[in-house]
Amino acid sequence: MIVAGSFGHRSLFAMVTLLTDFGTADGYVAAVKGVLASRVAGVQIIDATHDIEPGDIVSAAHAIRRYWNRYPPGTVHLAVVDPGVGSDRRAIAARADDVLLVAPDNGLISLVLEDARASTVVELTNRELVSVPASRTFHARDVFAPAAAHLLAGRDLRMLGPEVSDWVRLPVPAPTVDRTTVSGIVVTIDRFGNLQTNISASAVAPGSLVLLDSREIGVIAGTYSDVPSNAPVALINSDGFLEIAIRNGSAARVLEARIGTPVTVLADG
Amino acid sequence: MIVAGSFGHRSLFAMVTLLTDFGTADGYVAAVKGVLASRVAGVQIIDATHDIEPGDIVSAAHAIRRYWNRYPPGTVHLAVVDPGVGSDRRAIAARADDVLLVAPDNGLISLVLEDARASTVVELTNRELVSVPASRTFHARDVFAPAAAHLLAGRDLRMLGPEVSDWVRLPVPAPTVDRTTVSGIVVTIDRFGNLQTNISASAVAPGSLVLLDSREIGVIAGTYSDVPSNAPVALINSDGFLEIAIRNGSAARVLEARIGTPVTVLADG
Amino acid sequence: MIVAGSFGHRSLFAMVTLLTDFGTADGYVAAVKGVLASRVAGVQIIDATHDIEPGDIVSAAHAIRRYWNRYPPGTVHLAVVDPGVGSDRRAIAARADDVLLVAPDNGLISLVLEDARASTVVELTNRELVSVPASRTFHARDVFAPAAAHLLAGRDLRMLGPEVSDWVRLPVPAPTVDRTTVSGIVVTIDRFGNLQTNISASAVAPGSLVLLDSREIGVIAGTYSDVPSNAPVALINSDGFLEIAIRNGSAARVLEARIGTPVTVLADG
Repeated sequence: MIVAGSFGHRSLFAMVTLLTDFGTADGYVAAVKGVLASRVAGVQIIDATHDIEPGDIVSAAHAIRRYWNRYPPGTVHLAVVDPGVGSDRRAIAARADDVLLVAPDNGLISLVLEDARASTVVELTNRELVSVPASRTFHARDVFAPAAAHLLAGRDLRMLGPEVSDWVRLPVPAPTVDRTTVSGIVVTIDRFGNLQTNISASAVAPGSLVLLDSREIGVIAGTYSDVPSNAPVALINSDGFLEIAIRNGSAARVLEARIGTPVTVLADG
Repeated sequence: MIVAGSFGHRSLFAMVTLLTDFGTADGYVAAVKGVLASRVAGVQIIDATHDIEPGDIVSAAHAIRRYWNRYPPGTVHLAVVDPGVGSDRRAIAARADDVLLVAPDNGLISLVLEDARASTVVELTNRELVSVPASRTFHARDVFAPAAAHLLAGRDLRMLGPEVSDWVRLPVPAPTVDRTTVSGIVVTIDRFGNLQTNISASAVAPGSLVLLDSREIGVIAGTYSDVPSNAPVALINSDGFLEIAIRNGSAARVLEARIGTPVTVLADG
Repeated sequence: MIVAGSFGHRSLFAMVTLLTDFGTADGYVAAVKGVLASRVAGVQIIDATHDIEPGDIVSAAHAIRRYWNRYPPGTVHLAVVDPGVGSDRRAIAARADDVLLVAPDNGLISLVLEDARASTVVELTNRELVSVPASRTFHARDVFAPAAAHLLAGRDLRMLGPEVSDWVRLPVPAPTVDRTTVSGIVVTIDRFGNLQTNISASAVAPGSLVLLDSREIGVIAGTYSDVPSNAPVALINSDGFLEIAIRNGSAARVLEARIGTPVTVLADG
């Protein structure tokens, strides 16, 4: 057994986060945790989430983007939303800046890889890392967790397999920008019904007017409480993107918005 | 980086519990955990819950009351149900007996502060503790978690800001008591549909008859199985309050009760 | 206080998993975790699940079966789905191979005990282990968690109470087998709508034809992606049982199956 902290070049505290679409009630997540705990004594296992809608790679990719770089160097982010399990989709592991990731190659970690200043991606081909016998339907337990365990133990990323550069990119539409207008869409909707767009802070000026579809939301504000309760508000959110919200309400419900709903920002003046 | 256990006067094991209304699917909670893990190496992060209904401060306050004093001395309870984020609502930290708390000043931890034998509350005003740049919409990550990290590292509560005594109290209705009757209400409903009232064990005698609205429930029993399956039962619950339940059923559904439904206890004889 | 790792014969890393039907929002689970953390310093607390449907012992028993033997030796699995709390149902603790379990004696851990190569079961009768005062409605906090804490500290199982052999078995129907046919049923349905049967891999031959009720599913395949998207597939799943699924869909919904729906396997030829 590998004991966390016993490697001179490693953090004393091995830490792994888990993101899945498994829910917890069936015991699958608990099995994955057992594999990790059995292989890396003392590892800290952090639940990111298991409540991704089944197969919703896009929402999961945006969720990971919110937390991957908040963790200590050497943290391993294990993410499995894997509708293609058992198919020929590849499994990958990656270093993104100073953290590590393990995931199916379906776009799940592609936003992270694109955001990172530096990244290396390898295909998981080293068969010695896989549980024997490995199932063909539960790679989180039998392939991804063992791979994560090896990274947690300080094994080099390149021992997992050869470097690849053609990892799957999530198709995230870029906003279009002209002299007077930035045109984007809603890309995620959170639990509060807040609408995050694909328009980054750097693309818009503070005094700009925001429209959701053809409905006027208002000029970009600083925070939710800049407007009265139940009023709509546009602001730059904690991820650095334009967001449309209803103060103390659900913008998704009240404004009848969904992923893909157009958002327009008109330059001031 | 602060290493848990490196402070002579601190527990070897820094521990923080998290309660939010964020859900987990959006990755916000995982970001908060990353901030804590990055700032306090080796901290144990315990999920209390992230399933509080959005903005439901009252339910959250009752939930915290059920666990805050079960933890080792020095535990930090981080609780964020914060519909007023970005407004001028204050952020507070507190010592309650031998544990610490960090929360918005909206009543969320007021039941704990009232239950504690001794408490000290400070306003979080020390700007050095806040993440830079701090968002105006995600204080759990940028304000509360950094403050919790400082407490986990053994920093004195008073370094976070000045003591305050006018922290927000949750308006919890007290039962009315006369010679023959105690009149209260349902204050929380749990996952099983059990109805917890605001009537404490000390206010009622064992043989008393209990009514929910005008419906007779029965005399106060010892436990659920003192009545047949699917029958209603009144008992003193594990928190020391009068509770109305249906054995192996949901009292909320079967008895059509909700928060605020009147409960009456008639003295024996 | 017991400090994990201070016992010569114990693992350095005490670990406990939790399975309940409590949900998390009410704070009950957090109270249980506090008891464990207070009694066993440094214990690692792993959430298996708290999302078992209230009182659903059968689903919970199948969930535990999926993870119990994936954990390091000495791990304590604390499982509480306990509709009979307060009745005369017994509380038990057990050793199953090299892990330990604590649960009500209602069948919850009986699949584990039957799967284990070796097991010892004791009734929890040692009153010194129980929290004082113990509630009659929250044994997870007041009885089971204290018992788990003692096991985590390396106390001998038999100190908890006398060995029993008549622990409650979950009635799991066995498939019937004749020369040409294996007849079983759906026993669990997971979050993805996959239908797990009570037919184990050893009971069926690879080329066999599978029927759900009277609907032909196909011959047993290797993995989900052996069929086109949205097509039904029968395979041996990661637990070693016959499973019926819809690739990238919900077999439960599409095939209108439920627990108890008949499944037939016809021998090849």
